[in-house]
Amino acid sequence: MESFLPVDPLSHFPIQNIPFGAGIFSDSTEPRCVSRIGDFIIDLKALEEKGVFSDISSKPLFSDPALNTFMAEPKNIWRLVRERIQSIFVSTNSTYKDDLALLEEVTKRISQFKSTIPVRINGYTDFVSCKNHMINMYTILGKNPADIVNENWARMPLGYHGKSSSIVVSGTPLIRPKGQSFNRELSQPVYGPTQKLDHEVELGVFLGGKPNKNGEPISISSAEENIFGYVILNDWSAREICLWEMNPFGLFTGKNFQTTISPWIITPFALEPFKAPFEPQDPIPVEYLQEPNHAGYDINFETFIKTESLSEPFKISRSNMCDLYWSPSQQLAHLTVSGANIEVGEIYGSGAIASKDNINGCACFMEINKGGRVPMTLPNGESRVWIEDGDEIIITASCQGNGFVVGFGEARGKVLPSI
Amino acid sequence: MESFLPVDPLSHFPIQNIPFGAGIFSDSTEPRCVSRIGDFIIDLKALEEKGVFSDISSKPLFSDPALNTFMAEPKNIWRLVRERIQSIFVSTNSTYKDDLALLEEVTKRISQFKSTIPVRINGYTDFVSCKNHMINMYTILGKNPADIVNENWARMPLGYHGKSSSIVVSGTPLIRPKGQSFNRELSQPVYGPTQKLDHEVELGVFLGGKPNKNGEPISISSAEENIFGYVILNDWSAREICLWEMNPFGLFTGKNFQTTISPWIITPFALEPFKAPFEPQDPIPVEYLQEPNHAGYDINFETFIKTESLSEPFKISRSNMCDLYWSPSQQLAHLTVSGANIEVGEIYGSGAIASKDNINGCACFMEINKGGRVPMTLPNGESRVWIEDGDEIIITASCQGNGFVVGFGEARGKVLPSI
Repeated sequence: MESFLPVDPLSHFPIQNIPFGAGIFSDSTEPRCVSRIGDFIIDLKALEEKGVFSDISSKPLFSDPALNTFMAEPKNIWRLVRERIQSIFVSTNSTYKDDLALLEEVTKRISQFKSTIPVRINGYTDFVSCKNHMINMYTILGKNPADIVNENWARMPLGYHGKSSSIVVSGTPLIRPKGQSFNRELSQPVYGPTQKLDHEVELGVFLGGKPNKNGEPISISSAEENIFGYVILNDWSAREICLWEMNPFGLFTGKNFQTTISPWIITPFALEPFKAPFEPQDPIPVEYLQEPNHAGYDINFETFIKTESLSEPFKISRSNMCDLYWSPSQQLAHLTVSGANIEVGEIYGSGAIASKDNINGCACFMEINKGGRVPMTLPNGESRVWIEDGDEIIITASCQGNGFVVGFGEARGKVLPSI
Repeated sequence: MESFLPVDPLSHFPIQNIPFGAGIFSDSTEPRCVSRIGDFIIDLKALEEKGVFSDISSKPLFSDPALNTFMAEPKNIWRLVRERIQSIFVSTNSTYKDDLALLEEVTKRISQFKSTIPVRINGYTDFVSCKNHMINMYTILGKNPADIVNENWARMPLGYHGKSSSIVVSGTPLIRPKGQSFNRELSQPVYGPTQKLDHEVELGVFLGGKPNKNGEPISISSAEENIFGYVILNDWSAREICLWEMNPFGLFTGKNFQTTISPWIITPFALEPFKAPFEPQDPIPVEYLQEPNHAGYDINFETFIKTESLSEPFKISRSNMCDLYWSPSQQLAHLTVSGANIEVGEIYGSGAIASKDNINGCACFMEINKGGRVPMTLPNGESRVWIEDGDEIIITASCQGNGFVVGFGEARGKVLPSI
């Protein structure tokens, strides 16, 4: 399939993608729901006002400044809307192609657009679901990685709830967090800006569709009905703050300050051609976590650092969604196993995704620096143990198709000094 | 101060209280914002439409079906509205007192009313802030309670984020949660309804006012500007599920299934006469947690069980807000120390509140049953180790004034079998 809108062959957003997002056009102040082909932003509200979706839904789907109203529809509506957008911009349809005035009413150039957070997020959960990441962390902490299979981690997707209010869209700076940690030399707690700021490469999953009722878990077989789409998620972490606070009640202020997501939500329909198996699970999970097809998508993540002195971003790692051990469906089944109800607009993170290559496939600085012991040398001779003020972390993700790419764009954030 | 509306001397809601809530009148289907004196429900939207608040706010405060719009106003507006309500219903004001038709337009009997969740809750945090509770738990787990002062718990209000979507209003049944736990006899994880269902007596704190910006912590000196009011909070817990999942990432599905709150939000103004000191803290906290006046309110909590065979609720414990070690202001300063931003409508729980009396002052069944070892005998001869299907847990809270009570009503929930 090809669009009449020009698309660079390396673009993450060919007509095969059709992501959903929100943002503000330069002639407006209100965010609106959009899609994208190449560098053309598709105004979904304008399309809706032309009646393009009137046979799909009698209710307005895109008069909301974020995607929540659309996300509350069932999966079949998401699919039909996506296919309708494709059908309008496919090269064989001349309606908009041959009417430039009409085309301009429903599309804008990306230079006239600024992304906003695409969803009003009312819940955030973060999982820890990558075995390679666990092995790296165990090794760093002097524990035996072989023990992992005997622990709770290998039996269920462990997770914790996070602070949804502090999720921001790519491009938002991060003010270096402050907090309390334990200073071993002084033998006492100290307060100040984190000295061990880190990132974590994750996949974010947005929930939509019909929420479950409180008390009624979502079964693994129906979990995909509630998965609206995927984003890149950077789970910024303050390592020494986490270390001091997490035992026994869990992660809190070392994680809750900010989480960065990419602005475009990539749908399961766009990712379907890239379906790829996860490694088989051993031990076999408890019944409610067993799925017939233990699979994800062949999504390649790449992480870059751009310091103020570097002339261009420097790649520090790569990994793949299929490096995960627990799948998004297993995560959702576990999140709700107790009967917890979800809401439309919730997001959960996969947990840090590391490949088996513990040099080039790390999910975070802590893995790269082996717990703070091994500095990383950048091409200009600079060295980094942890993320410093002025550094920008950029995570990209994409799937390589046959002659096209389905990508996520990027989740980027620059670190500013503490206030 | 006295109201011309009749108030039972034991009522939790004299004119000295003026709580805020929301609910549905029997002649309507839409929730609306309300207050209460005795068994009279005050329709705040109706009062607003009469222009009663027009000199206080030019914007509508109560056209919202929940309190969020009002809560977003600054503390001084909350105070003025409360005082205005008092001035309308005080016995010396004849405007509404002497005009029964007018009075009926703005008040309804409680029999014509059903409480709803008073706030659209978009964030939930639970702290663990009571030293007595920690001592009881350490003793049960075979640890030395004297060690607590050397641990992170004594240095900051430890906490974790919870699932705000599963917070329900008093009266909502709890469907017994299912989950995964580790069966020692079988030496493997098992899945099923929790066998160790528990409650926790907590104080909930609702946030309002002007939220902080991401990156800018709320200082302890300004924390009270963001505290809209207080409710009773029952942090239902599935103990064996918590135990299996919590190490190392924290509490998750053993807590996220349901949390019950009382329907009426009690304001700091109503509680002001009951200000009472906490015990001094030792060790002295790190700077950002130091407060000149380490105090709470003299709020007495009582917890009851009503089994299907008991003719009336049986009291199982009592404790007081001043049994807490960390104050609500310290909790808010810590929640945001990293720069995490709050939103209007967030809630946080104090953590289980136990008194020094580890027999009659327990915060939960686990303390009463000494970790499952000591059954409780009820007046009708029934025995309980954990909460069983059909049991109802009722928590009340109140402050004893001079000739009146300022109370919270109750947070109640009956346990139904797993689905």
